[in-house]
Amino acid sequence: MYYAAFDIGGTKTIVAVLDQNGIIIGSRLFASCVASSETHLNLCVEKFGEILTELHLTVNDMEGLGISLPGIVDTGRGVLIYAPYSRWENLPVAEFFRGKLGIRHIECENDVNACAVGELKLGLGKKYKDFVWMTVSTGVGGAVVSEGKLIRGADGYAGEFGHLKVEYDHPHVCSCGQKGCLEAEGSGTALNRMMAERAESDEKFRVLLDEKGLAANGGGCAALADEGNEAALRIFDRIGTYLGRGISNCINILNPQAVVLGGGVMRSFDRILPSVKRTLREDSFVRMQNVDIVPTALGYNAALLGAASLVMD
Amino acid sequence: MYYAAFDIGGTKTIVAVLDQNGIIIGSRLFASCVASSETHLNLCVEKFGEILTELHLTVNDMEGLGISLPGIVDTGRGVLIYAPYSRWENLPVAEFFRGKLGIRHIECENDVNACAVGELKLGLGKKYKDFVWMTVSTGVGGAVVSEGKLIRGADGYAGEFGHLKVEYDHPHVCSCGQKGCLEAEGSGTALNRMMAERAESDEKFRVLLDEKGLAANGGGCAALADEGNEAALRIFDRIGTYLGRGISNCINILNPQAVVLGGGVMRSFDRILPSVKRTLREDSFVRMQNVDIVPTALGYNAALLGAASLVMD
Repeated sequence: MYYAAFDIGGTKTIVAVLDQNGIIIGSRLFASCVASSETHLNLCVEKFGEILTELHLTVNDMEGLGISLPGIVDTGRGVLIYAPYSRWENLPVAEFFRGKLGIRHIECENDVNACAVGELKLGLGKKYKDFVWMTVSTGVGGAVVSEGKLIRGADGYAGEFGHLKVEYDHPHVCSCGQKGCLEAEGSGTALNRMMAERAESDEKFRVLLDEKGLAANGGGCAALADEGNEAALRIFDRIGTYLGRGISNCINILNPQAVVLGGGVMRSFDRILPSVKRTLREDSFVRMQNVDIVPTALGYNAALLGAASLVMD
Repeated sequence: MYYAAFDIGGTKTIVAVLDQNGIIIGSRLFASCVASSETHLNLCVEKFGEILTELHLTVNDMEGLGISLPGIVDTGRGVLIYAPYSRWENLPVAEFFRGKLGIRHIECENDVNACAVGELKLGLGKKYKDFVWMTVSTGVGGAVVSEGKLIRGADGYAGEFGHLKVEYDHPHVCSCGQKGCLEAEGSGTALNRMMAERAESDEKFRVLLDEKGLAANGGGCAALADEGNEAALRIFDRIGTYLGRGISNCINILNPQAVVLGGGVMRSFDRILPSVKRTLREDSFVRMQNVDIVPTALGYNAALLGAASLVMD
């Protein structure tokens, strides 16, 4: 038994085939062709064909196709309603692939929801039935799982943790147009901004980066923090404080067993965790602080595995 | 068909009998005897007996007894684990009344959860299946309903909206020991504190209150606000801003159809609503702002009706 999974992202796409144990047995990673959705979906078909040939399989061997999409998804119809980065709109994704590939069982889901469902079926869901999933990357996204089930809310937008307000008095403007959002204060974007500001205002810091061949971004911050650089440690402390504020809101409202973290910034999970935990002790209700803060068990392929899990039993 | 309902609160208790339509046909309201839980539960039995006599009914006419309790409740066993105001602990409430009254079907629930369940079965639940319930009174409590079902969380503490942090830079200390909680900044307690502070620091304001025979509390604030008094209007604006911050967190995480408000402060619902709505426009994600902010349909008896609804089909 095999499963097809497409993780179509705003910048990159992964097309893959998985076996019955959820192990990826063939995949292609390529840049998303944002300019034309049709070109891009056809490219997915082509890459998928290459994998099948490689594996000596056909579409008839596939139990189903699960697709993770970078935006608002009508899961019932398999339509990508709107994708913020690419500006793709009302794209009938399931119908397109059903026509091109002849696979009948196709499920589509928003990328962060896919991560949460994947975690539930293939990752930490063995341990947790009540958890929140938070992606910390360029932006911040999330999903809520309660009693082993995804909470969607009235319009399917539940889990917009990136727009929780975590700074009221000295806020930065967010891409959503509002101010003080977690996405503006505690994301990869915020981390890069803090590094750039520091490099701009502090010549010694700028020289230090240059000497070590480091960029004024998250990677540079991690390298300096590991050497005990005070400024870099303070930046991670601030990111962790803001993440802690957002996470505390989730805890106070949902009383989850765990907060599962994914996304690129989580490569610095251990650097950020102390200030997240300090903030939780200050900002979440004392009876609910017994919550696990853990990195995703799905690693870099969370959305892809999540996509596959959509068509697994 | 009749239902018994007890709303046992930290300061007052209501014991009642309802008919099959959820209409209260007999009730007693009396002060809760905090000093002795046994005395108080026996008092409930006595008052309930009076109502039955009055109505020419017996316990055999009761389909069940629903009980709302002021603290943490083990709903499975019907035990009040801990009540913050009275300091009652590990009280086997269901067992006690089962023994004294001989009613077999007894359900116990935390007061705010009872309100939410009551709203679902007897109030706005006809219109909303995804909503949050918020009590704004001396403290602030809440409950989350998703797809017509109460969300309890890992330990049954979900919905602690009173301890959402809404003020990071100039916080007041909360009864929970933390700082900047909604309960410390946007509750009836906060309203009274703001009025007392104003009366203390502003002699003209104090004289005005005296002249009108008003107290430096929520009632005095409402009376002055209705005359257009700037200071009183500003106090309601601050309360509404903090409530709006807490509500925005709920919206961003849960994407509810509605936020249903109850509790004593909601007597000033119309005075507070404008600043709540202004804050929602600033602090909740733009796609989720289409949310109804409404007062409970259950009025003053929300917890009592909620208690009754626990044993209704």
